[in-house]
Formats: sequence, C-alpha cells, structure tokens
Amino acid sequence: MLFEHIDYLDENFEVQKNAFIGIKDGKIAYIGTEKPQEDFGEVYNGKHGLMMSGFVNAHSHAPMTLLRGYGENLPLDRWLNEKIFPFEDKLTDSAIAASTTLACAEMIRFGTVSFSDMYFFSQTMAKSILDSGIKCNLSRGLTVFSDQDYEQLEAYKDNMDLLKNYQNAGNGRLKIDLCIHGEYTTTPKVVEAIAKHAKSENVNVHIHLSETKKEHEECKQRHGKTPAKYFADLGLFDQPTTAAHCVWVEDEDIELFKKYGVTVACNPVSNMKLASGFAPIPKMLEKGINIALGTDGCASNNNLNIMQDLYLFALLYKGVTGDPTVVTPKQALSAATLNGFKSQGRMDSGKISVGQKADIIVINTDVPNMYPATDIACNLVYAAQGSDIKLTMVDGKVLYKDGEYLTIDIEKAKAQTQMHTDAILQQL
Amino acid sequence: MLFEHIDYLDENFEVQKNAFIGIKDGKIAYIGTEKPQEDFGEVYNGKHGLMMSGFVNAHSHAPMTLLRGYGENLPLDRWLNEKIFPFEDKLTDSAIAASTTLACAEMIRFGTVSFSDMYFFSQTMAKSILDSGIKCNLSRGLTVFSDQDYEQLEAYKDNMDLLKNYQNAGNGRLKIDLCIHGEYTTTPKVVEAIAKHAKSENVNVHIHLSETKKEHEECKQRHGKTPAKYFADLGLFDQPTTAAHCVWVEDEDIELFKKYGVTVACNPVSNMKLASGFAPIPKMLEKGINIALGTDGCASNNNLNIMQDLYLFALLYKGVTGDPTVVTPKQALSAATLNGFKSQGRMDSGKISVGQKADIIVINTDVPNMYPATDIACNLVYAAQGSDIKLTMVDGKVLYKDGEYLTIDIEKAKAQTQMHTDAILQQL
Repeated sequence: MLFEHIDYLDENFEVQKNAFIGIKDGKIAYIGTEKPQEDFGEVYNGKHGLMMSGFVNAHSHAPMTLLRGYGENLPLDRWLNEKIFPFEDKLTDSAIAASTTLACAEMIRFGTVSFSDMYFFSQTMAKSILDSGIKCNLSRGLTVFSDQDYEQLEAYKDNMDLLKNYQNAGNGRLKIDLCIHGEYTTTPKVVEAIAKHAKSENVNVHIHLSETKKEHEECKQRHGKTPAKYFADLGLFDQPTTAAHCVWVEDEDIELFKKYGVTVACNPVSNMKLASGFAPIPKMLEKGINIALGTDGCASNNNLNIMQDLYLFALLYKGVTGDPTVVTPKQALSAATLNGFKSQGRMDSGKISVGQKADIIVINTDVPNMYPATDIACNLVYAAQGSDIKLTMVDGKVLYKDGEYLTIDIEKAKAQTQMHTDAILQQL
Repeated sequence: MLFEHIDYLDENFEVQKNAFIGIKDGKIAYIGTEKPQEDFGEVYNGKHGLMMSGFVNAHSHAPMTLLRGYGENLPLDRWLNEKIFPFEDKLTDSAIAASTTLACAEMIRFGTVSFSDMYFFSQTMAKSILDSGIKCNLSRGLTVFSDQDYEQLEAYKDNMDLLKNYQNAGNGRLKIDLCIHGEYTTTPKVVEAIAKHAKSENVNVHIHLSETKKEHEECKQRHGKTPAKYFADLGLFDQPTTAAHCVWVEDEDIELFKKYGVTVACNPVSNMKLASGFAPIPKMLEKGINIALGTDGCASNNNLNIMQDLYLFALLYKGVTGDPTVVTPKQALSAATLNGFKSQGRMDSGKISVGQKADIIVINTDVPNMYPATDIACNLVYAAQGSDIKLTMVDGKVLYKDGEYLTIDIEKAKAQTQMHTDAILQQL
C-alpha cells in the first residue's frame, strides 16, 4: 500500500507533513516527500489523516468483555466474590472464543495493534487472536496455592503447553509470556520454577504487582519485603518482565524496576474504577522506568479503548500531584506506543520509520475537535476520539478501514458474545 | 419526525425497548409501543439506536476553542500571563464568530443540546449560537476592579445590553444569565448591583467559585469568609445561580448551596488538567446539591466533549475517596442531563417523556464497545464514545445526523477557526 499526501507523527512525536509512505512485505519500506518510483500497490489518499504508530495495550484480560457492565459499584471483595468469580466459573470455550474476537475488534477499532493479555482458556484465545490479525503477547494466568504437585496443575501445564504450541505463531504476531498471577496467588517455589523456565526458554514474564494496598502490605507481613523485592530475589526479573498496576510500589521498588528493566503497565482507568489508588507515575517517569499503558479487563474499565487510558494518563497525575507540568503529551504517547512494544520485546515496531513493521494507524484529523491544529501531540492526547481512527494495520495488513473489519466477522462476534453473556447470567 | 423501533432511556435511566416516539412542534408528542395513528412526518429507523436526553454543558467558554493546544504543560500563572491573556488580547469579532460556531459544532457532535457560557464579544457569540440551532444560557464575563463608574465599563454595559437584546431569542433557545466572573475579579458593590439587577429582571446568575486554593484562601483573608458565604451575604444567590468549579468549598458552603439551591457546575477534566484539585463531589451528592457538568474552555480541557466529563465524573471520585461505590452511573447521567437543564431554568427538557422539548440524542449501540448490553447506563457512561452519537436534535429540529451538520457550514467553521488562530499566533 502507498499512503499519499499523509501527515505522520515521527519518533519524536512531531508532525511531518504531506509525505509518501510505502508499505511492503509487512514493513515501512519508503518515506519521502516525493512519490516513489516503486509500485506499492493500492493507493491510500492520506488527506486529513495522520499516521502514527498503533497503540499497545500492555495489560488486559480480553475475554472479560463478557462481564462488561456486570457487578457495578461494589466494594472490591463483594465485586470479586459475588460477581466476577461466580461468572468466570461458568465460562466455556465458545464464550471465550467469541469474547476474545469481540475484544480484538474493539481494540482494533480504537487503534490497538498489539496487546499483552493474561487469562485462561488460552489456546482458545490464541486461535481467535491469530484469526483477528492483531499482535499479542499472551500468557496463561497462573495461580497456585500449594507447592505439592504444582507441575501437574492445569494452570501450570497450560503455561507450558501454550509456550510449546504457540510461541511465534502467525509469523511472530503471537508471542507467549510466562505468567505469575501475583505474589498472593502463588508460592515462592512456583515463582522460582517460572523464573527458571522463562530463563531457559528466553521468554518474557507478565505479572500483577502491588495493585492494592492490602496485597502490598500483606506481602510485607508474609515475606518481610515488598512484592517487587520478593520477585526480584526469586529471580523473576532476570527476564524482561511486565508488571501490571504497581500502584503501591515504594522508592526501593522503583530502583529495582530500573535495575532489572521491568516495565510498569499502568492501568489508570481500572485503578480509579476499583479505587485501588494512584500509581507514583511522575516519580517513575523521572527515574526513567519504561511505563506502558493497559486497559485491564472490561469488568473494571469498562472498555478496551486504550485512548481513554492515554487520555487519563496525561491528565490524572497533574491533579493528583497538584503540578500541571507532570506527564507531558509526548510522554503519554510514548507510553501508549513505543514503551508498550518495548515491554513485549517487539523492538521492530512503534515508530514511523523505514524498516519498522507496519503496525500503524491513521486518525481522522478533519473533525471539529481537532481544530485548530496548533499542537498535534496535544490534540491527539486530549481531544482526539478513539472512534476517529480510520485505519488500523498490522504487519502491513489492513484489519480495519472506515468502520469495516477485514478479518473479523463482527456481526457474529457481537451476537455470540451477547448470547454467551445472557446464557451465563441465566445460570447465576 | 417519528422514531420507530427505538430503545430509549427513561427518566429513571432505565431502558425502554422498541418504542415509537413522535415529535411535533418541537416537543415529544407521543411515546408508545404501538405505531401512532397520527402522521409525524419523516420516519427514523431506530434499530441499534438508543434515544436519551441530550447533554447540557453547564460551564464553558466556547471561543477558547481558538486556544486548543496552546500553552500546554505550564504552571497556572505562567499559563495565564504568558499564554492565555496575550492571546485573548488579540481576539477579533470574526475570530469569535468562527470559533463559537466550531465550538457549537463540536458540542453538537458529542450530543450537547444546551450549554452555559461565559465569555466576551457576547453579541457576536449570540448570533453564531442562534444560527447553529443549539440552546445556550449565555453570559458576558464581568470583571471589575474598582467601584468608580463601574456602570460605564464595557463589560458591565455588555451584560445589560446582552440581556436587553437577546433574552429568549430564537424562541427561547437563547437565555441570558448575568455574570460575576469571580470574587477576586469584582468588588462587593458590583456583586450587589448584579444581584439586584438579576432579581429585578428575574434572570439566572453564572459565576466562578473556589476554583483554586489560592482564590478561596485569599477571599477568606480579604473578607473573613469563604467566596460562597461572601456571595450569599451580598444577595447573589437569591436568584438561581450556577457556580463553576467549587473545588475548595467547605462544609458550610455546601450548606449554603443547599439552602439557596445553587447549582455546582463540576469541571472534572479542567480541574485535573490545571491541577486545581478535586471538588468534594460525593459529599455534595449526599447533601442533594444539584450538580451539573461542564467542560470549561478548550484551553484547559482540551475538548468540548461532555461525555469525557461524564466519564471522568463517574470514575474520578472513586479513586480520590478510595470508595468504589461513590458516584453511580445514574447519578452521573443525571448530572450530564437533567441537572444541567435545571441549572439553566429549562424545566421542560431533560427527560424522554411526552410534553418535554425534543432536545434529544440517539447513540449507536451497535458498536463493539457497547456489547454485551448487560447494563446500558453503565455502558453509556463507561464504554460509549462521544463520536458514536448518530443524531442530535434541539427543539425538534435535527442539527446533526450520521456525521452531517444541517445548520452549520462545518468546512467554513474549521477553516476560519484555523485561519484566525494562525493569524493571532503570528502576532505573538
């Protein structure tokens, strides 16, 4: 595909105007102000469009789309015990397949080209994800409460099977991370085993960390150290790790993130909706921690529009710190794109530059809320709407264009997700 | 117009399914499950649409659309003195006309059917607003720093002229409020004069109140009382008053709001972006204060999409208080609709019921982010996108449908706003 006369956001998040951008073999092959000699096939008129790197959703639970709007306005323990767990107990393979597809569709609509997910029924998820054309670092949520025969547990075996069967599937679109659900849901022995396996297979790790004050403080009581120190001491951070939430982390934890290159997947919407707290983002930005953005699951968000998290990420910490200069639009855009790809070990994505994978989006800038165009980065973060995305492309393949899905049967995904939700609700 | 087979949100924010709704003479004339005998003219297929009351933006500065993305990430005093004031000093009538029209277009796109505004060049604004078809309670920002000959000041005379020339223009679409910009920008004598005039003309009042800690504390030093007590004692609250921000109000101030029926126009985005603080919303809701929602101006938001404020209003205070049960979706929807109309003295709008003015919107529910439809109020608040609004109608007249404006020359508004912004920036 050849994009003609298109503005794009370069790697410094500055606008470059009126370019020709050619896509070939899944990569950005040409950028210039002159029309290229080479024939790139289909021509895309870029007028009133802005191309930028697609977004990365660095922490989600895609099938929880089934739970959107279920169990609202409850305290965390009642929400989990009375609503979420009983619902999840009724999940089926076909419900997972439909909701994963719908989740991919929603993410694609709002410009996400790659996401990092942690849930169960993972091989079913893998198939839906591959079919949708999106990229994903998938992990199987691992909760183990006893050391005895843990290797025989389904969750543990699933982690291994997923890695064996799906690592680098779809020409590398699917990558498998190993998972520790959290400190309070696993044992030290299991953490060590996963750390060791991650090292021997050289794969990334995806965990929850210090989401709630309770979780953080109870770990200190149990182990005499914070969750971050606990994981670091057990060797888990020796492999690239994405730690979701990190709301209650302390200064020493941030030093550990720095030392080990841990990515913090910040989930500003979910943390607010569940009243978990506010992560110390300005401090972590100052220390140079790689901060990416996540939506978390639909049950606590209630959408998979990463642009809402981008928006809140660039607003919230001004309010919380009382300093309107913290978290700039460019820092927020970096968190939503480049930092997410970095967390996934996808260093060949995240920039509009020659040689990078064509994991890109085009946003409609010809809408009232994007005028005047005094500061495009600022408009993108604070004024653009997720639904103004005109085109989503992954590995050079168009997945979504002007409201149409090219890889997903969206009517089927909507209808089946509704049907499975209704069926589960009837059982509760 | 006759809406067929449409779902709608009733006055309890519950969904009623598959209705026929007839519009006649600017009002909702029929609601039923049977097709009416009467001919209502054009038929609208309501399948996959949800009708609800349009939104009210209870505090804005529409022409500040010109300043979108200008002067970002600065502390408040530098932002005002180095950026906002010098820019505003260059404003012209034609810049105001274009930007007011663009602001109306943006509000209409995102489902706002009525807004309360405070700015200058008000008669120019009045014309643009009337042409757009939207409703507005317009006020001329009044700042007066000395008692001497204040009645001769342009800002004071403008308040009076605007009232004289435009009250109830456009068949009541335009209403004029009197204005006190704030305690720190006016004198007691002027406040008393406006209070007296508002009473004699029986009009509403629009003010800024306790937006920043500095403003709130300095008033207490100056007058020995809070801004709310100061205004109440000067008789300003004897007429229905909309007080914007109210971030730093104290318990006694909330009692005064209750006593006088003052509406609080909460601006969650602006307050966060400028790091002004968090208003004590849960406490005010508990006391039964009429809380409406505002975007504030584009310079501190940076959009006029009230659905973003609705979203934040229903998220933020959970995070701030640590209690996930505060501010329910229905409370938020009420703030964004009915409470706003109430603040404007428009008791004939805000509900989908027979006899109400047809100030309504239709939202597309057939998008991935609205499935499953387990809890529609919740989906509307936390998952819907402003740009999924398919239709905006004011007084029974369609202003916007499927992306097209019926009363606004949108290409002209965009181009002229861009041109005027560029011209002003060149002078700075």
